[in-house]
Amino acid sequence: MSKGFPDVMARLIEGFCKMPGVGVRSAERMAFYVLRAKEADVESLARSITEVKRNVSFCRECNNLSESDLCLMCSEKKRDRSRICVVEGPNGVMAVERTGSYNGLYHVLLGALSPIDGIGPGDIRMGDLVRRAEDPEVKEIIIATDFTTEGQTTALFISKVLGRSRIKVTRLSRGVPEGACVEYADVGTLQRAFEDRRTV
Amino acid sequence: MSKGFPDVMARLIEGFCKMPGVGVRSAERMAFYVLRAKEADVESLARSITEVKRNVSFCRECNNLSESDLCLMCSEKKRDRSRICVVEGPNGVMAVERTGSYNGLYHVLLGALSPIDGIGPGDIRMGDLVRRAEDPEVKEIIIATDFTTEGQTTALFISKVLGRSRIKVTRLSRGVPEGACVEYADVGTLQRAFEDRRTV
Repeated sequence: MSKGFPDVMARLIEGFCKMPGVGVRSAERMAFYVLRAKEADVESLARSITEVKRNVSFCRECNNLSESDLCLMCSEKKRDRSRICVVEGPNGVMAVERTGSYNGLYHVLLGALSPIDGIGPGDIRMGDLVRRAEDPEVKEIIIATDFTTEGQTTALFISKVLGRSRIKVTRLSRGVPEGACVEYADVGTLQRAFEDRRTV
Repeated sequence: MSKGFPDVMARLIEGFCKMPGVGVRSAERMAFYVLRAKEADVESLARSITEVKRNVSFCRECNNLSESDLCLMCSEKKRDRSRICVVEGPNGVMAVERTGSYNGLYHVLLGALSPIDGIGPGDIRMGDLVRRAEDPEVKEIIIATDFTTEGQTTALFISKVLGRSRIKVTRLSRGVPEGACVEYADVGTLQRAFEDRRTV
């Protein structure tokens, strides 16, 4: 498809095409952007790509993104080390951090169980979580995987595996979103909100 | 939105976000791709970006993409220099080249007239086309802009401007697409196919 473009341009389009969700048309538009953008923006983009690849990897302890061996959360001394919040990806860490209401550690699975796609416990390094849960300092595992089929499967699996241990395993509650009207909540959400209702 | 990511990662996401059609979520996925892709792929992507910016520019003669002062078409000796095909962008050149039935020169407008967006004749360097049409060697200008409002406006403008000259100005025909059923052609297309019908 990119034949007829100058060679370097075709190579760039090919490169962009390898990214998730980027088709030939989008890749072409991105290549034209590179062609027309300010020199400084382009240099900085190329440099960031190289730097991310070279400097960012995963935290040895929790799998979160990190520029060093241990991530910011794991190396922060004043964090509550008795609680570990399990999320599917680094975006989950950021979402929980934004709430400002959690001060414990994290465990990033980098995925969720999905038998259909052949993703089993080994692929999301479930063993690492089990090993961390064995630390006597840890009292509670808070499962914050998504409420999708995969996320729920993963949550169920974690609770089964760790349920036998002395540890408390909890799951984020489901219910009507903050600021939402009850009449517009979908049936499933409202059912859960009833089940998980709390004394006030 | 990208707060909480390591600094270089946030910078990369910001950089991707500047591209047309790339939102924060897509940019994040692209950044994760960079993180996980093979070292060689990433290096090559960063290098292509820099190279395209440094080496690719526009042909002095026809505005097509080019790695040198004159593009491949303009510098090809055996091209028919009496005809110039006017297209909106480099993709148009490629589309016409793929047909294998045109051996003349091109003129790339790098856009189309769009009064609503404030794009006038100066923005698509119409003067360059008029200057080229003055070359006594040129006998025909074939307008191959899109059949959209902007493309049609541009075609009309070109035919008005060059209509007064000794040059023949033609427009690609409209009609039922090759391989298509007449019963499924839209009204406008079928109307044009009647108007432009030819003796067989």
